[in-house]
Parts: sequence; C-alpha cells; structure tokens
Amino acid sequence: MQFTINRPDFVRRLNDVQRAISSKTTIPILTGIKLVLTDNGLTLTGSNADISIESFIPVTDEEAELSVVSTGAIVLQARFFSEIVKRLPEKTLSFEVKDNFQTELCSGAAAFTIKGQDANNYPRLPEIETDDQLMLDVPVLRQLIAQTVIAVSTQESRPILTGVHLVLAGGELLAVATDSHRLAQRKINLDINPNIRYDVIIPGKSLVELSRTLGEDFDQVEMRVADNQVLFLAGNTAFYSRLLEGNYPETSRLIPTTSSTKAEFNAPSLLAAIERASLLSHESHNNVVKLALTPEDGNVMISSNSPDVGNVEEALNTESVSGEALEISFNPDYMKDALRSFGQTQIRIAFTSALRPFTLVPTEDDDQFIQLITPVRTF
Amino acid sequence: MQFTINRPDFVRRLNDVQRAISSKTTIPILTGIKLVLTDNGLTLTGSNADISIESFIPVTDEEAELSVVSTGAIVLQARFFSEIVKRLPEKTLSFEVKDNFQTELCSGAAAFTIKGQDANNYPRLPEIETDDQLMLDVPVLRQLIAQTVIAVSTQESRPILTGVHLVLAGGELLAVATDSHRLAQRKINLDINPNIRYDVIIPGKSLVELSRTLGEDFDQVEMRVADNQVLFLAGNTAFYSRLLEGNYPETSRLIPTTSSTKAEFNAPSLLAAIERASLLSHESHNNVVKLALTPEDGNVMISSNSPDVGNVEEALNTESVSGEALEISFNPDYMKDALRSFGQTQIRIAFTSALRPFTLVPTEDDDQFIQLITPVRTF
Repeated sequence: MQFTINRPDFVRRLNDVQRAISSKTTIPILTGIKLVLTDNGLTLTGSNADISIESFIPVTDEEAELSVVSTGAIVLQARFFSEIVKRLPEKTLSFEVKDNFQTELCSGAAAFTIKGQDANNYPRLPEIETDDQLMLDVPVLRQLIAQTVIAVSTQESRPILTGVHLVLAGGELLAVATDSHRLAQRKINLDINPNIRYDVIIPGKSLVELSRTLGEDFDQVEMRVADNQVLFLAGNTAFYSRLLEGNYPETSRLIPTTSSTKAEFNAPSLLAAIERASLLSHESHNNVVKLALTPEDGNVMISSNSPDVGNVEEALNTESVSGEALEISFNPDYMKDALRSFGQTQIRIAFTSALRPFTLVPTEDDDQFIQLITPVRTF
Repeated sequence: MQFTINRPDFVRRLNDVQRAISSKTTIPILTGIKLVLTDNGLTLTGSNADISIESFIPVTDEEAELSVVSTGAIVLQARFFSEIVKRLPEKTLSFEVKDNFQTELCSGAAAFTIKGQDANNYPRLPEIETDDQLMLDVPVLRQLIAQTVIAVSTQESRPILTGVHLVLAGGELLAVATDSHRLAQRKINLDINPNIRYDVIIPGKSLVELSRTLGEDFDQVEMRVADNQVLFLAGNTAFYSRLLEGNYPETSRLIPTTSSTKAEFNAPSLLAAIERASLLSHESHNNVVKLALTPEDGNVMISSNSPDVGNVEEALNTESVSGEALEISFNPDYMKDALRSFGQTQIRIAFTSALRPFTLVPTEDDDQFIQLITPVRTF
C-alpha cells in the first residue's frame, strides 16, 4: 500500500472520520482508523461501535491530489496518526506500508515510521441496500435534530428514552423525544411516495454527531434503514448508527388538546429572563422558577426565591395573555432548552393547571413543532 | 450604600478583579468581592491571599457613569454577583445595600435581592509607601515574565524555586528562574537612579496573573516593594503579590562560558521539528529526543525512537554549525518552552558535551537573554 496525497486536505478528511473514534472504547482496534486504498481511491473508516463514519477520497478529487502507487489496507492508531499528519512540514504526504505493518509517513525532510495493525481485524460495516431510501434537506434535518434531541433522556435506566423516535407514514416524518419530564415533537411533510414507512429509534448521541458531521457542507442527505442500523449518505461521507431496539412509548396522548391560560412571548426575551432567574434557582436546592400570570391586568411575573441566597423577580413583556389567573413552577433548565430550540420567533405557551404539563408552540405553523414541560409541585 | 453605574463597563471592571478570586480558597470571605463606595468613587477588591487586585472607578470616569447616592461598603459572593450583573437586561445598574447586608440589584424590570457580608470582615491590603518606586514599560515587563516564568518549578518541594528572582542593581534589572533542570535569565537596562536596589523573589503564578491583568491596556506600570509584598500600579488598577521568603540559589556559575559545538537555527522552524519529534517521544516512556550534529558535513539530525511505537528522524535546516561532532539527548518539552520564548528570531545553541547543560541565546543581543537546558543521559 503506497500513495501520496495533499496533506492539508487529508487532515480535513481525518478530522471528519475521527468524530466517530473514542479513546474510551473497550475494543482496542477501534482506537484506530482504517485506511483502504484501491485503484479508485482511499476509504477512511472510524467507529466507536455505536456510530461509524466512512469517508471516501476518489482519485478524481482534484483537491485531494491522491496518487495511488500500490493498493492495500492498514489500521493506524487514530490520534497519534492524525497528530503526525497535522504536524508534518510540507504540502505533500507520502504514505507507504512496509513489512510487518510498519508504516512510513514522509513529508519534506521529516520521516516517521509507526506501527500499524492488520486491517482484516477491523470490524466490518453492514451493507445497507434498500429501495426505500429517503432524501432529506440537511438544514431541515439538522433543525429537527436540534429541536428534539434536547428532550432525550441521559439516564440509562430506560435506554429506549435515550433515542429519538422517528416515524415516517403517509409522507409525514414525525420525530419525538421525551425523558418523561419533558417532550419535544417535530413534524416534517415530505414530497415522497406515501407508501414508504419507517419506524425507528435512533440514539440521541448519534444524531448530535450526525448533525456535526453534516455541518454546513452538504445540501442533501440520503437516509437508509436496515434491521438494526441506519445509514446517512452525503457526498462521499457515510454515517452509520445502530438503532435502539424495543417499543417506544405511545406519546401522542401526553400532549394536552385544551388549555385554560395562554400567553405569547418573544422567545429570546423570555429566554433571557429565565436565564436570569435560573442564576438564583441554581444556587438553591430545588432549582425552581415561578411564573405568575394575571390575564386580567395583562401581567406576567417571573420569580425565584431561596432563603439562603436571595430572591429575584421580573415583570415580563408579553405579546398577549388570556384565560384564567395561574401560578406555576418549573425547572428553568427545561424551559431554557425548549426556548433555545425556537430560535428568533414568537411562541405561545398554553397552560391547563399548576400541576399539568404545559406546551410551547411557535405562533406560526403551530402544528409542526411542540415542546411540552411538566411543572414542579411546590406546595 | 447606593449608586448607579454603566452596567457593561462595570462588567469589565468586575472581570479584572475576579482574576484574583478563587473558589478554592480556604478563607470563605475571599470567595467574595469587596465594594467600597466613597464620594470619590468605587473600589473593587478581589484576593486569593497570594495575590490581590484592586480596581478604582472614579466618579469622574465618563465611561463608568458612576453616580453616588450614599457611601458604604459590602462584600458579595463574587461569581454569583458577576453572573447576575452580566445577565441583567438594561444599560444601567442600580445598586443598593439595605438592612442586614441585603443588597438589591435592579436593571430594567428585573430586581435581584442577594445576601451580602460585612466588609469589616474582609482582610486589609498592606499600604506600600516608598520613594524607590520603579517605572517599567508594560510590553518589556510582559516579555520578561514570559521568558523567565517557563523555567520556574511547579514542585512545592523547594518553594523558593517556584518564584522568579528579580535583582535590581546599578540600573540593571536581572530576572532568573530555574527548576534545577533548566534555567532562564533575562536582563533589562533601565534609565533610573543606579542607587536603587531590589532583591526579591516573586511567585511565578503571581507574575503570570500580573501579565494577564496588564494585558494590552497599559503602557507603563509602577513597581513598589515592601517587606513581604510587591505592588504593581497601572492606571486605576493595583496588583499586589506576596513575596517568597528565603535565599535564592546562586545561579550565575551554572551558565557555561565556553563551548565546543555551536549551531544557529531559525527558532520557529526548529520548534516545529521538535514538536514533530515530541509526538513520538511522548508515546514512549522516557520522553527523549536526540540531536546529532556533524559540523564537518554541515548536518544536524533530530531523531526519536521508541521500540513499541515507532521512530522519527528529520534533517534540520541550520544557518551554521561549527565545532566538534556531538550527539546529545534532552527532554523536548523543555526545548519547546525555551524556543517559544524567543519568538520569530534566529538563535544560537552552544554545547559543551553530551552531559553538560547547553545554552540558547538570540544571535543578536546575546548577552540580554539566555535559556539553559540540562541534557538527559541515555547510555
């Protein structure tokens, strides 16, 4: 195995694949990066057993300037290999595997020889062939991930809740996540064959990594689902994640359909007020913020109180407030996550009672996106 | 105690003083920031017992827009207070101490009440009056700190070596630091009364904080020394540090005056090569890099070898190399620190033998600045 390549461009490809590689893995060979060179190009693979990222550099890629001398495959310790490639002095990297997996990396006057491992010992990625692939706009998918992944559980006591439930039916993609204290649900209408059906649970961590991997570089991504794996294909990058197995709880009945008090806010200004109030609630032991709505006077007050530390109160700017008077307490960190997911928009919060979950929706397109938060009983 | 102030400007002053405050202090009141308001202005004080920073905001400061309603003093928990001031919504902050040290912070519609402490319980800073103050150019002082502080010891086994030894005599300021494996020495000629004499040891950590505090904001700083404290005054900021007590070892005899092999390098290119070689030495257990100089052929080779990991070698670009052939091994991390302290300059390295310390000096002004490194025996 021997090739030369444009070193700065190769560093970027290594960075992409390294996202999947963890130094904490219990499978030693997965601390390595696999390089497979054919006459068509070079494939880099990184994996942490949950997710795998594969990046293909074709010989036709002008920026990569890949020149194949002889084909082959090797696994190299990922962090160490990347550090060396980054630090080498010149534009061109020469790469050659010699006897006993000894790999020589040369650039300018610097020559490294490092130990590699047999690529045959590296786990194989599944082949996912399907006719039911789905094309998604990357900005839409990244928004969907950002809006739902905040509500996945970080506790391993109910593993199924660490994932986002994705259901495709009748041309509508529904994404739901809940940690049983809060819930996030986003719908997207797709212009596709309405007979394609999916029902999968993707680990939240995988989706966060997928979102970072897609970044701003791609317009569209193709999604393919197999028995226990999902594959996202964008350009020459393939992102694999395992799926969570089991039945996701039925969530639609959790979302209230009626309300007794409603208020409209500018999401960023409400977020700023919640952030202020949470400074105080974070210093106290119960981390609770109170909202007092008095529709009669058009007043909404936010407050938090901790006998040891102090108290805070602030009159909020509302676009409108209607219905019955209400005092309700909640964890401000859930509210912050929810408000950030709306961006620079107007939102409507609908309450039923001080002990029932309340919902946040955008004032426009209010059936596409909903955040639900369970209040905290303080009496 | 009551005042109003320009909040964004006040945030900057708080940040300056907070450098001195550590949450890890064993003296509870030092987690607080002291505010003292007189008719002349507001003084903020932060301290971690080793260093103290005082910032004065005069009523005449137009950016601060300080308006005094009534004078007084209070101590507030520093981190919490700063977070609140940063998060408040409007340009103006109203500050009022009420009964029982309860302090009200208002801005726009937000009102915080937080618990304060009696300012009489806050330790007093020493008053340092002297006729022998020293004016120093801030860029020169910061360079002197950066060039010497790298060599202070981080081990508390010999506390005196955790400081930089500053000696002023005959109008020359000499700064020396050593951790017994390496040494850094810098001289500055000052245009002052040659009869002023200082001999102090300032903790390295204090000098690093001083350098950050001075930043790019000040041109000149005044230095005053008392029995066990040093004070640096710049604008309305006062920086106090305790001094280390004891006798600093005699270091001048450690610096060799002759050499048998010399080589000149461009500091940044040598640094890049050392950084590459150290990637490999860091993976092995002894962390050693070898330099082989062959003046006859004009060759300098750097190499590192670890049987478990691999090896690296690189032919270095030298400006000149003369004297006897030599192989010498050293800790590349000491070399990296030393080379960084030279910036973008040409340097000369002078060796006596494989087991004797070698020196690095700039090729110009070679009597003003010297770095010394002890080699590692590898046979």
